[in-house]
Amino acid sequence: MKILLIGANGTIGSAIDRELSSRHEIVRIGRKSGDFQVDISDSTSIRKLFEQTGRFDALVCAAGNVKFAALEDMSESDFALGLQDKLMGQVNLLLIGREFANDGASFTFTSGVINREPIRTGSSAALVNAALDGFVKAAAIELSRGLRVNSVSPTVLEEAMGKYAPYFRGFKPVAGADVALAYAKSVEGLQTGQTYIVG
Amino acid sequence: MKILLIGANGTIGSAIDRELSSRHEIVRIGRKSGDFQVDISDSTSIRKLFEQTGRFDALVCAAGNVKFAALEDMSESDFALGLQDKLMGQVNLLLIGREFANDGASFTFTSGVINREPIRTGSSAALVNAALDGFVKAAAIELSRGLRVNSVSPTVLEEAMGKYAPYFRGFKPVAGADVALAYAKSVEGLQTGQTYIVG
Repeated sequence: MKILLIGANGTIGSAIDRELSSRHEIVRIGRKSGDFQVDISDSTSIRKLFEQTGRFDALVCAAGNVKFAALEDMSESDFALGLQDKLMGQVNLLLIGREFANDGASFTFTSGVINREPIRTGSSAALVNAALDGFVKAAAIELSRGLRVNSVSPTVLEEAMGKYAPYFRGFKPVAGADVALAYAKSVEGLQTGQTYIVG
Repeated sequence: MKILLIGANGTIGSAIDRELSSRHEIVRIGRKSGDFQVDISDSTSIRKLFEQTGRFDALVCAAGNVKFAALEDMSESDFALGLQDKLMGQVNLLLIGREFANDGASFTFTSGVINREPIRTGSSAALVNAALDGFVKAAAIELSRGLRVNSVSPTVLEEAMGKYAPYFRGFKPVAGADVALAYAKSVEGLQTGQTYIVG
């Protein structure tokens, strides 16, 4: 399969790369690194990406920005980042990418644990993650040509605990390699409309 | 209690009005009808509303617009309506309204069944409903002064089946009066961060 991997250089992305690259052709995409670049918050940038990559069999997105701040300090504009970047960025990867997707291609997006187990400063992340899981469930039943869409909702990663441990006290982190398995299940399996919870 | 009821003239809103008005002071708010008017998609309009209503003990929103269209025909701009109106409209009612809320006041928002049981044309509604339920769960744990926030997620209403039946084949509708009970539970109870599923 030809797999577009967005966020290939990140903690999750590089674990997915290790899991899938022995069996598939991986096109590595980043905001600034990789074979191609994209800013998922900009639908023009997304369309340009697909014009460069050409047709594909699977798209995996392990990228997306959200504002983390105390709810007390959050205003409408702080929510806009997550809506435009992590949420609509991934939705637009499907809305635009379907034109470039081969029959039976899959889209696998990344949400996260925070809507299941909220943390301080996580109100926008919870909103966005839940929105993604809800979108995937509903979009799946309307896709044609055997196209599929799933999300992966990982808890905090072992590899990220150096940076994120203070925000995730009491959370049992999971290894990136285990998170990557969920993406393999989505890409190489046949299910659609699923949210794969890891951790 | 002084309760601000947004969408007071709608199917759900009028049922909430009947449930709560014998025990509480209801301030009826609509886009064009009621004691005061608001366009929840516009944060300036929201702030103006609260400056008119003054302080309150509970806010209930049973309003919010979302685009319904086949996923095939949905583009980024079609998702913008639901994000700006039903989703950020209700989020902004909390972000702005908390300045005008008495200690211990509650916010009760309306999501809906479509993220739990997706239907054709419902991809934006599913995204928005899930986002609201996720937001409520996370925002609740960060609120101060005893403020609370919940959502109600009703299935299709008996009173709406004349219009919506073709979209909800196989769904067992619920009476507006039963949906209104969930809002009473949120307003008059003490729970927070909950999504009350009705139907």
